[in-house]
Amino acid sequence: MTDTDETGEVLTLSHGAGASSMRSLIDSLAVSRFADDDDDPSAGTVGLAALDDGAAHPIQGDRSVVVTTDSHVVDPPRFPGGDIGRLAVAGTVNDLAVMGATEPLMLTCSLVVEEGYHVDELDSIMASVEDTCEDAGVQVTTGDTKVMGSGDLDGPVINTTGVAVVPSGSVVPDSALSVGDAIIVSGTVGDHGIALLSEREDFGFEGDLESDVAPVNDLVRTAAEAGRVTAMKDPTRGGVATALNEMASKSDIGLELDEPAIPVDGTVASAAEVLGIDPLDVANEGKVIFGVDAEDADAVLEALQDHPQGRDAALVGHATDEHTGRVVLDTGFGRRYLSEPEGEALPRIC
Amino acid sequence: MTDTDETGEVLTLSHGAGASSMRSLIDSLAVSRFADDDDDPSAGTVGLAALDDGAAHPIQGDRSVVVTTDSHVVDPPRFPGGDIGRLAVAGTVNDLAVMGATEPLMLTCSLVVEEGYHVDELDSIMASVEDTCEDAGVQVTTGDTKVMGSGDLDGPVINTTGVAVVPSGSVVPDSALSVGDAIIVSGTVGDHGIALLSEREDFGFEGDLESDVAPVNDLVRTAAEAGRVTAMKDPTRGGVATALNEMASKSDIGLELDEPAIPVDGTVASAAEVLGIDPLDVANEGKVIFGVDAEDADAVLEALQDHPQGRDAALVGHATDEHTGRVVLDTGFGRRYLSEPEGEALPRIC
Repeated sequence: MTDTDETGEVLTLSHGAGASSMRSLIDSLAVSRFADDDDDPSAGTVGLAALDDGAAHPIQGDRSVVVTTDSHVVDPPRFPGGDIGRLAVAGTVNDLAVMGATEPLMLTCSLVVEEGYHVDELDSIMASVEDTCEDAGVQVTTGDTKVMGSGDLDGPVINTTGVAVVPSGSVVPDSALSVGDAIIVSGTVGDHGIALLSEREDFGFEGDLESDVAPVNDLVRTAAEAGRVTAMKDPTRGGVATALNEMASKSDIGLELDEPAIPVDGTVASAAEVLGIDPLDVANEGKVIFGVDAEDADAVLEALQDHPQGRDAALVGHATDEHTGRVVLDTGFGRRYLSEPEGEALPRIC
Repeated sequence: MTDTDETGEVLTLSHGAGASSMRSLIDSLAVSRFADDDDDPSAGTVGLAALDDGAAHPIQGDRSVVVTTDSHVVDPPRFPGGDIGRLAVAGTVNDLAVMGATEPLMLTCSLVVEEGYHVDELDSIMASVEDTCEDAGVQVTTGDTKVMGSGDLDGPVINTTGVAVVPSGSVVPDSALSVGDAIIVSGTVGDHGIALLSEREDFGFEGDLESDVAPVNDLVRTAAEAGRVTAMKDPTRGGVATALNEMASKSDIGLELDEPAIPVDGTVASAAEVLGIDPLDVANEGKVIFGVDAEDADAVLEALQDHPQGRDAALVGHATDEHTGRVVLDTGFGRRYLSEPEGEALPRIC
């Protein structure tokens, strides 16, 4: 998945696709430079090497500061079900939520646009930022604006960074699955990625497809109140397939999933077939994968299904001590390893 | 400073230049939407409406979380005295420092690059991020990488967001000058902006001009230990002229400055003359403007001059109850108001 020209390796779209090419790049550029060895999620410390949805650092009083950042470049900036403003806020709120921080303290918003960009368009994006902040119960408290020259930038870049302070013991990593834990998906998978690709390809499904982009911090709070959540992940770039593989590999555990139990919207499934893409491989922007203590699985599932954002929640599998680090999918006709999407680069999906 | 085409107002480079066009834009896009009314810097609360170098929000135990964010688009990404990696870290560390947070807890780093960008180049930028983090005593703890299509983005965009936790009483805004306060500049002004412009224009001064880009958190700590600092500002985009006008206007106070006392490097002054630009109007990336209690002015100045980054520090003026909100410059031949740079858009300076 790498490419070289005469003078050395150059970046390809797959370096931004969320799976192994990207992780190799991040390993060499950042993890090798900045990783601490003292990660201890149960004590509220999650650093760069964890490559979790964000980072956590303990402060006085058995509390931790949780931080997450994302730069959004989605194309088109307005898509069925949302826009880059909603995506930016939801993406950051959701990364905090799946770290166990469901009440964001502050959100930053940094815009980069090019000369000639319409102020009305930017205003509409910021209106969407405002609406989504209200949904999530968070405020933008500081920001930045940069204007590049005309022709320098195709579409706006919006960085949002979220900060929360939580009891150190309530930080939830993506790496703490135990044998027997139930795996619950909060709703239908693939909606965002398939809606965006259909829009781009103009395949005629557009009317019926919508991104699921939404803040899920209230949904996560509901789950955490109903039972013991051991691990969580926000299945964005690389989809559910990448998120599950990361959870298995980081937890040193195997996952066994019942493929027919994974909820997929009918129109999404049809569009995915036409596009030749697996809904498990594409980004979600309003879904959560939960690892839940087996004893609490029914209670958490029920609580999720009672929540407006969790009606389609489903128990899809469990963690096992077999095939460590891998995800086995029971298709109903046989078993196969679920691999991460590679090669299939979906640029500017979020 | 605005422009319209057939379908409405569009962005111009001056919207990114740090002065009044940008503030109007931010007012309409963000302040009108997100501003809280309960700003109280002395209690550790600084929100969006303050348009300070960052935001602060109180948490348990009389402490405040301080956050600042910047997206960096500097062109060229490598310039005399530094590069975009050093600029990104220093810019964020310095914004925290002038809020009174000289010990950053966490730094995020989010990269946006285009397909075909050289991995070696990115690696060199990240090496610079690493070196500057060491200088500042901060760690990158989380990040993000996005790859846009070839031709979509001219040069890398690096967002850095910094987080610190400080006693609420030690938050320093840019708005709390009192009559009589001394104004101290930590060193020569205009170095970054003039070095960058000379490099771009290829004016032949390049060998002797260098950006001042550096973290100043240790310098700020030195000042704060030597005396009571009442207000601070990081004079980046829009230069010292914009920063001083903002401090005067936000503090509802006048400033009287002795122009010949403002330190300007000789080569910078010559290059600025050739370029037809006032060194007071362009960005600095390693300087601080301090408001200091008059009684402590000598002690703070001395402490700064003993610091390797403060050798050229100078007392340049004081706050007065006359000409509220304005900055008066005594040129040695007469007095004039110091106005903010407008029209003179310097795109992609940081």
